[in-house]
Amino acid sequence: MQLTSETLERAIEALAKLPGIGRKSAQRVAMYLIKQSPDYVHQLTDSVNALKKSIKHCSRCYNITDEDPCRICLNDKRDPSLVCVVEETKDVYAVEKTNQYRGMYHVLGGVISPLDHVGPSDLRIRELVERVGTDERIKEIILALNPDAEGEATSYYIQKLLQAFDIKITRIAQGIPMGSELEFIDEATLGRALAGRGGF
Amino acid sequence: MQLTSETLERAIEALAKLPGIGRKSAQRVAMYLIKQSPDYVHQLTDSVNALKKSIKHCSRCYNITDEDPCRICLNDKRDPSLVCVVEETKDVYAVEKTNQYRGMYHVLGGVISPLDHVGPSDLRIRELVERVGTDERIKEIILALNPDAEGEATSYYIQKLLQAFDIKITRIAQGIPMGSELEFIDEATLGRALAGRGGF
Repeated sequence: MQLTSETLERAIEALAKLPGIGRKSAQRVAMYLIKQSPDYVHQLTDSVNALKKSIKHCSRCYNITDEDPCRICLNDKRDPSLVCVVEETKDVYAVEKTNQYRGMYHVLGGVISPLDHVGPSDLRIRELVERVGTDERIKEIILALNPDAEGEATSYYIQKLLQAFDIKITRIAQGIPMGSELEFIDEATLGRALAGRGGF
Repeated sequence: MQLTSETLERAIEALAKLPGIGRKSAQRVAMYLIKQSPDYVHQLTDSVNALKKSIKHCSRCYNITDEDPCRICLNDKRDPSLVCVVEETKDVYAVEKTNQYRGMYHVLGGVISPLDHVGPSDLRIRELVERVGTDERIKEIILALNPDAEGEATSYYIQKLLQAFDIKITRIAQGIPMGSELEFIDEATLGRALAGRGGF
């Protein structure tokens, strides 16, 4: 089917490339935008363009930020002895939402994944080792990578590298998620939960 | 939770206003865009801005178009004796996708809905009546509005207005959808399907 407007067709195609947005949703979004005020549409496109223009990475933790160093690194109420290592900025936000962590972060920018041609040198692993080597305040590194094959391998790799330093290296607990039912938990998760059992 | 970047926060807020996109999807889209090439991001924002700049309504059928009159109105292989009345441009695309209709369209721009303060004068109903009155080729008006209270009321209203002309006024059939099971069809739909029964 040919749409009646090339302009609309081009916008739908560009929108449909976004993650989680298929052609149908893209069409809906485009139709919606046609009806909106030019002000709103400009505000939207300006804020999206700003993502490429204004956002940089913090030179200390590699989280995305408008100012370098980032707000978390500059916050002197946070504990500089703890560094939580995560894959991506979105994982920083996930940890922040728990309201349970008041330390620093280190964003790797991904995980080691030979199938995707991502090796240790493509990530900020060297930067982490340098940071641990130069920042004497760091007492503990918490590895909080995703519990999949790549995350596990990357955690193991980093742990090996950091053994040279006199710091604690921990990882977030693996076990059964809150609110789940044992019956429906996969064997691997239940196995980890058993192996990692603790007292009350 | 406060994000580490105002720029990111603003983009997420703007994206989350789009239909079908919640804050979580907006965050995912924003993170994705940060990683994309500036070329792709500009292509996306330019094509979205073009929606407001370049798109107009066809002065004959009120479908959206880049050129006036639109491709459908200009296509001399289409049947000018049939006009299908729909609520929105997206309904034109829905009908076109059936590949069963070769007539013209008339896009109302909505339906009569007192609760939303939309009256007949806010729609292109007067334009439809004028079109039927001046275009002698028109022999049949097919009402294809959504089968809800507003669509029904608007169909009825238009039907009354057009009775003054010597043309056929029809509406698309209401009945059970293909692939459905009678057991799960609501009573109103099944009632319409029975009332509208026909031969083989």
